Amino acid sequence: MRKGLIIVNTGDGKGKTTAALGMVLRAWGRGMRVCVVQFIKSETGQWGEIKAAHKLGIEWLSTGDGITWTSRDMDETIARARHGWKIAQQKISSGEYDLIVLDEFTYALHYEWLDTQQVIEWLKTHRPPNLHLVITGRNAPPELIDFADLATEMSLIKHPYEQGIKAQPGIEF
Amino acid sequence: MRKGLIIVNTGDGKGKTTAALGMVLRAWGRGMRVCVVQFIKSETGQWGEIKAAHKLGIEWLSTGDGITWTSRDMDETIARARHGWKIAQQKISSGEYDLIVLDEFTYALHYEWLDTQQVIEWLKTHRPPNLHLVITGRNAPPELIDFADLATEMSLIKHPYEQGIKAQPGIEF
Repeated sequence: MRKGLIIVNTGDGKGKTTAALGMVLRAWGRGMRVCVVQFIKSETGQWGEIKAAHKLGIEWLSTGDGITWTSRDMDETIARARHGWKIAQQKISSGEYDLIVLDEFTYALHYEWLDTQQVIEWLKTHRPPNLHLVITGRNAPPELIDFADLATEMSLIKHPYEQGIKAQPGIEF
Repeated sequence: MRKGLIIVNTGDGKGKTTAALGMVLRAWGRGMRVCVVQFIKSETGQWGEIKAAHKLGIEWLSTGDGITWTSRDMDETIARARHGWKIAQQKISSGEYDLIVLDEFTYALHYEWLDTQQVIEWLKTHRPPNLHLVITGRNAPPELIDFADLATEMSLIKHPYEQGIKAQPGIEF
């Protein structure tokens, strides 16, 4: 029996977005219809995943301004996140997809730019039952984890930054 | 500065293989040369990731007999794992790849079908310095984590099996 799953990848470690990308690849391999809505990060076209999505014909929507953590204009960042959720709502309710990824979406909930309970209520009434929805990001709110079917915590055991090694293209981005 | 990383995805949760697939997708998106050597699992052609790899022209070598946990012939399983390591050694030392994934390789180490210290010593002397090597599986030996540049633990928070929901194509396989 096919059932759309709500999947949450959270935690302080690596692999949250990366595992979502792995699901994108699997689903694409099966001919499923996939869409990625990326929050926070901006589309510079320099990300390996965006290059890959373009090559594969996977719809990829970057809604962030990419400068959140050093942002001089938090209003802009917050407005972009709320706009991103509107785009996500359209995609989710369209019925045109088998898998939708909301990448880094937890930040909008954690920082209360969006109300978690309202987001969950909206999903309960508007998500097509067969749609798989993958949500990534640190600090997933407990209500979201309660709502999820599958939730995974990615924890850092060891990181190359600690050893002075920079992020490597093709691996981390 | 480009430096090949040793990356270990371990833990009891989901997302170990899936995050490796995400790196495969990123690297492929950047035109990097990628190879996956899969231990334990057999190639049935029914995996979403194998379908995707075939479509993308990514080299994918399944070396397992796929029946390990219920195997009536552990000798066969062990022989296949050791043979898989020989194949992996050829691929690693060839210098023809930018990223190699050894999927589910930790089992061969954990169950001592291969000697972890010997594997590490071999990698120290034979791995091209720019090659990224991703090793996945539960119970990664501590020596392997010591050797790794990046190690992540994927932990289960919540799993749909607990609620009687079956594994979903495109998501888990």
